[in-house]
Amino acid sequence: MEVENKQIILKRYVDGIPKETDMELRLGSKIKLKTPKGSGAFLVKNLYLSCDPYMRGRMRNFHGSYIPPFVPGSAIEGFGVSRVVDSDNPNFKPGDLVCGMTGWEEYSLIQKTEQLRKIQQHDDIPLSYHVGLLGMPGFTAYAGFYEVCSPRKGEYVFVSAASGAVGQLVGQLAKLHGCYVVGSAGTSQKVDLLKNTLGFDEAFNYKEEPDLDAALKRYFPQGIDIYFDNVGGTTLDAALLNMRIHGRIAVCGMVSEQSLSKPQGIHNLFNLITKRIKMQGFLQSDFLHLFPQFLEHVISYYKQGKIVYIEDMNEGLESAPAAFVGLFSGKNVGKQVICVARE
Amino acid sequence: MEVENKQIILKRYVDGIPKETDMELRLGSKIKLKTPKGSGAFLVKNLYLSCDPYMRGRMRNFHGSYIPPFVPGSAIEGFGVSRVVDSDNPNFKPGDLVCGMTGWEEYSLIQKTEQLRKIQQHDDIPLSYHVGLLGMPGFTAYAGFYEVCSPRKGEYVFVSAASGAVGQLVGQLAKLHGCYVVGSAGTSQKVDLLKNTLGFDEAFNYKEEPDLDAALKRYFPQGIDIYFDNVGGTTLDAALLNMRIHGRIAVCGMVSEQSLSKPQGIHNLFNLITKRIKMQGFLQSDFLHLFPQFLEHVISYYKQGKIVYIEDMNEGLESAPAAFVGLFSGKNVGKQVICVARE
Repeated sequence: MEVENKQIILKRYVDGIPKETDMELRLGSKIKLKTPKGSGAFLVKNLYLSCDPYMRGRMRNFHGSYIPPFVPGSAIEGFGVSRVVDSDNPNFKPGDLVCGMTGWEEYSLIQKTEQLRKIQQHDDIPLSYHVGLLGMPGFTAYAGFYEVCSPRKGEYVFVSAASGAVGQLVGQLAKLHGCYVVGSAGTSQKVDLLKNTLGFDEAFNYKEEPDLDAALKRYFPQGIDIYFDNVGGTTLDAALLNMRIHGRIAVCGMVSEQSLSKPQGIHNLFNLITKRIKMQGFLQSDFLHLFPQFLEHVISYYKQGKIVYIEDMNEGLESAPAAFVGLFSGKNVGKQVICVARE
Repeated sequence: MEVENKQIILKRYVDGIPKETDMELRLGSKIKLKTPKGSGAFLVKNLYLSCDPYMRGRMRNFHGSYIPPFVPGSAIEGFGVSRVVDSDNPNFKPGDLVCGMTGWEEYSLIQKTEQLRKIQQHDDIPLSYHVGLLGMPGFTAYAGFYEVCSPRKGEYVFVSAASGAVGQLVGQLAKLHGCYVVGSAGTSQKVDLLKNTLGFDEAFNYKEEPDLDAALKRYFPQGIDIYFDNVGGTTLDAALLNMRIHGRIAVCGMVSEQSLSKPQGIHNLFNLITKRIKMQGFLQSDFLHLFPQFLEHVISYYKQGKIVYIEDMNEGLESAPAAFVGLFSGKNVGKQVICVARE
């Protein structure tokens, strides 16, 4: 049985901020809903796809990173939640729910089967959370906060892009750990969510702060112990001026950079010495041994109502390019997900 | 008994690179060679004074650092080796040799007595080494290399300002640890010392490298595990492009910065994420519990001929301003010391 398979393809390599026109909806591709015998592969129907800022790195013609670039003319790859339709792999059966690396298309033939795992449907947890709270972004927050930031009760924590897929969980984990937490975001709606829904102690709109150093001095008169940096750029530079002695900076993303190949400069690194700061870049994939513990803790917190998670859900595969591009101007409110099909 | 006490004073606060004219030799000051009764102080004759790049930070009108600024119109302070002349402190007797914080002058009344410690004269170790190999710079190398860089045998180590007071010991410790070590320096004489006297595997003159990234790719085709950064600036930026996964950068000084208040930008921090790099600023003073172990190890290595130490000794207190200023153009070859008196 052959069906149509709508796809979002990358048209060309991109260097600066991606634009919608760098991608296109390709109609008319066909796919057989049957896995080739002897391939060990399986075939999925994609339900939810994840828009994540790191994907921009795969749109560059740069082969030296931890993950290879996309192939122009082919469907974009990303995390998703999918239903197995057919399988030539003994570990995955038709009907199984899986999450992991799939394609931006209606159906995907999964050959790198180790890049997905089976998931259980919890009645009270939305399936799409497996690309957010319970997926890569949630685990990034968990591993980054506990393993990279080495938090102690009572410490002062600053989170940028704080209502985003990662930031919102960092802030809530920090609160549960007994820290004082301030978040920055780019709209008053997000500031309101941070303070009133996500439980941050304080939050501010960085776009309304002509002097970020002064803003941080206002919110952290005693200085910052932990800065969980999702944005880089001027916010990182201002945070460097406000770190306390033996502070820690988890470098998790640089979504504010206009260009990854010609990034703006960071000027205040001298503070690393005078304040003896540890600044550490990390990827969640280095901490996978903690994934089971993460799931257990976060599902338990969620079921107890101790944490919440905000999603920004767009409907339909065709909405994916605009949703993805929106990440870089902060259009999304919470974790950006695309609903391709509700089955 | 009152004697003349020549002094080097700071004339005014400085922001950029210090100039000789920012300091001056003051003649005609007098000092009584007697400690005031009940003061707990002691009086020393200064023998050797240390010129260290960190002292530039004390020439700025900036009170937010780990150490307060100098007082314009007063003698500069710095590490020195001195002989106790008179004492009102039971722990220090006339004739004792001490090292620690003293004044850029012939005689100093030491009131912050906790900032000096008694030293033993070893027949085969020059006294002046107590402000170099066995003093703050040597201990900076030791603590930074072992505690911040977490070295493993066989790793690839890059050291900048490699023939300087700190760098020359870092490289030798790294070789003793079984690492492959490359140093950068600013003259062919220093490159020669690195390769032929200090035992580095390779060395290069950064001033002859129009493209530092290309130079590092030449010396580290497999990448850098540990970068011991004494200079900041363009060398740090180039090193960031060449780090290996899970690399470590010890941030120890930024002597290349023309201005500490308007530093140049570092552009390649994105590599912290993709390579999961730990970049850590440190001060030796956070590791003082290791000082006895450091002395024991380094004295033993030195006596066995396993390490050497290169000093640049200037004669006479009046030579101190030029010697200090020379640090920022790399005029010194090895650890810069001033001999004030040979007793």
